[in-house]
Amino acid sequence: MVTIIENIGLLWGISPTLPTRLQGEEMRSLGKLHNCWLSIEDDYISGYGEGTPPAAADLRIDARGGAIIPAFCDSHTHIIFAGTREREFEDKISGLSYEEIARRGGGILNSAARVQKASEQELFEASSERLARMVADGTGSIEIKSGYGLTLEAELKMLRTAARLAESSPATIKTTFLCAHALPVEYRGRADEYVAMVCREWIPAVAAEGLAEFVDLFCEQGFFTTDHAARVMEAGAKHGLRAKIHANQLAFSGGVQAGVKGGALSVDHLESSGPAEIEALLGTATMPTLLPSAAFFLRAPYPPAREMIDSGLGVALATDYNPGTSPSGYMPLVLTMATVGMRMMPEEALAAATINGAYAMGLHDRGTISVGARADLALLRPMDSVAYLPYSFGENCIQGMILGGKPIV
Amino acid sequence: MVTIIENIGLLWGISPTLPTRLQGEEMRSLGKLHNCWLSIEDDYISGYGEGTPPAAADLRIDARGGAIIPAFCDSHTHIIFAGTREREFEDKISGLSYEEIARRGGGILNSAARVQKASEQELFEASSERLARMVADGTGSIEIKSGYGLTLEAELKMLRTAARLAESSPATIKTTFLCAHALPVEYRGRADEYVAMVCREWIPAVAAEGLAEFVDLFCEQGFFTTDHAARVMEAGAKHGLRAKIHANQLAFSGGVQAGVKGGALSVDHLESSGPAEIEALLGTATMPTLLPSAAFFLRAPYPPAREMIDSGLGVALATDYNPGTSPSGYMPLVLTMATVGMRMMPEEALAAATINGAYAMGLHDRGTISVGARADLALLRPMDSVAYLPYSFGENCIQGMILGGKPIV
Repeated sequence: MVTIIENIGLLWGISPTLPTRLQGEEMRSLGKLHNCWLSIEDDYISGYGEGTPPAAADLRIDARGGAIIPAFCDSHTHIIFAGTREREFEDKISGLSYEEIARRGGGILNSAARVQKASEQELFEASSERLARMVADGTGSIEIKSGYGLTLEAELKMLRTAARLAESSPATIKTTFLCAHALPVEYRGRADEYVAMVCREWIPAVAAEGLAEFVDLFCEQGFFTTDHAARVMEAGAKHGLRAKIHANQLAFSGGVQAGVKGGALSVDHLESSGPAEIEALLGTATMPTLLPSAAFFLRAPYPPAREMIDSGLGVALATDYNPGTSPSGYMPLVLTMATVGMRMMPEEALAAATINGAYAMGLHDRGTISVGARADLALLRPMDSVAYLPYSFGENCIQGMILGGKPIV
Repeated sequence: MVTIIENIGLLWGISPTLPTRLQGEEMRSLGKLHNCWLSIEDDYISGYGEGTPPAAADLRIDARGGAIIPAFCDSHTHIIFAGTREREFEDKISGLSYEEIARRGGGILNSAARVQKASEQELFEASSERLARMVADGTGSIEIKSGYGLTLEAELKMLRTAARLAESSPATIKTTFLCAHALPVEYRGRADEYVAMVCREWIPAVAAEGLAEFVDLFCEQGFFTTDHAARVMEAGAKHGLRAKIHANQLAFSGGVQAGVKGGALSVDHLESSGPAEIEALLGTATMPTLLPSAAFFLRAPYPPAREMIDSGLGVALATDYNPGTSPSGYMPLVLTMATVGMRMMPEEALAAATINGAYAMGLHDRGTISVGARADLALLRPMDSVAYLPYSFGENCIQGMILGGKPIV
């Protein structure tokens, strides 16, 4: 099956070879072509160029002068939840802090109570709707975490829901067992025991069912320590689950260093980061993943993306879609916040949201326009430069999606 | 012609009488009903209630459990322009200031050069597309400013374009002659002469053609002074044009006090405001109009909305849609920035974006759900509370629009 997309006004994200990730100045190295075509053979990009497109094709798609970029790779989400938290949102405006809301039984514990009560079918329907909207808005690959279960049964229910989403959606789903998100009430004051139990019982149970590829914990002041992180990463590794760690969202938790030491694929959030965290990350395989819409929504300082990139690091961008601190799965707005709020250049932000997001999910066949890359593409309105995408915030520029070579929307 | 909207899940914005504006605690006074209907006679709301809707109707609309709110009243925009400015956006990320960009011939002068070259038809087509998108996204009434002409001919071209938009769009358009936006290059160092000429020649010419209802100037450090503002307001008043003034965006310019003194209907921006500005506004007919997406985009501090409302002031919210400093006409995101960034409660933000926006355009028959109010309504997805609208940022909740009693989208 050969598909030709013709009449492309701007093709952005070109790389002569398929990179695994882009770091430092490389983040601005992806190329572009104007007035061109792109060919797809089965699921993969097979060519692109200016001038007359190849004549032979089973399907021809007219881009009508629009732009084409790699579909977004959103490497950090919590889209499986039951019930939104707009009331808590009002509490936050009234000035309560994240910690205070958590102490009042709100926050993660609030979401956990609802997930425990919901049926798998209810979870599936609610998260299917969210996922479909994200795909329509440009996302082709998405990581989904558990972590609102807080009992083994409810965590497994979330992970099975993710597996059903993977079967039913044209998007690629990667699943993470977020085994220590908040301490269940019955373990209050006994975090060590909880983590030991998780490592001994829950991680093996999840791995035995093949329900997750990654393991995660919330390494944060008032939640879980670097020592807990080390134990979870070790148990994960023993059962074939690589780590992706929540770190340094609320304070300098040491989570970045712990993640690097434990060989985490990514350390995520990093609002509280300085030279020591950048130093710890340089030269490692760990991808710092920044979630600017969560910082925006919490009125927190943005992570130091500029300093990271200028130091030679690559960064990924993701939505952190969750009902408490980032109730949005809309990647174009993440690009706006990354450029406006963190001073990332538009092309850096796009590389962070595509190829580097793919890396942070262990996906190595997508995120750029390269021969041999999976044909996961977003078709945008006509624009002279991809800078238009973060610039024109609130305007939905996505006009179509192609995933695995097939038109979806 | 009687229209009944039935099966409304949430009707928000109810006021037993049609207010002209809401101030201080009143901004949280608008009521709501669940599971109800609303009736429209010709262009106006004729009733609403719980239980069985009236039987007789020419048209029945099923809201399918969705929410209905008054359509947004966006009282400050510059949607007539030729060419977007995403390149300058990249310059700004690189660290250039608003003033530096203006000094390099960018900013307003850049847009003016393009508007001068564009035909009226080109301006009309580009701004029609923007206006149609804004209407689809919830806006029913919109103020449009000239100000990118900087020659009388080009200013008249912009104002005639606005008149054509008013004829062709279902939205209500109010037009403002922004007569002193930036100093034309040929007047460099002679701002007094420019303002004198504008008052003597341009304002009378615009008024003679009936092309504007309001007059505006950019009262700002490095642009125009409070003395210029006083002269423009006086000339405007003489020709029947009430003032709406750009004030205190970049610095404490005295523009707020000047606007109040000159009887301005609104003073807009107000990022630089303190107790003296609040004191000056209290007890006056002048509406402070806040433009949080411009502050966001410029990485400027937000205006002190919380202090204003807590002091008893009413505020309006608008998009400031323009190609340089707020390239977005998307009101729902303004609500998010107002709540997240300025700590306005969701209901305050909605009142600011509806009834108080209407006041800031001199419109006194809309912006609430009241018998006798113009039936300009936005139909939203189902939601328990209007807090969902700013909370769920990036999700387009608008499912339909009714303007002047007629379904539009």
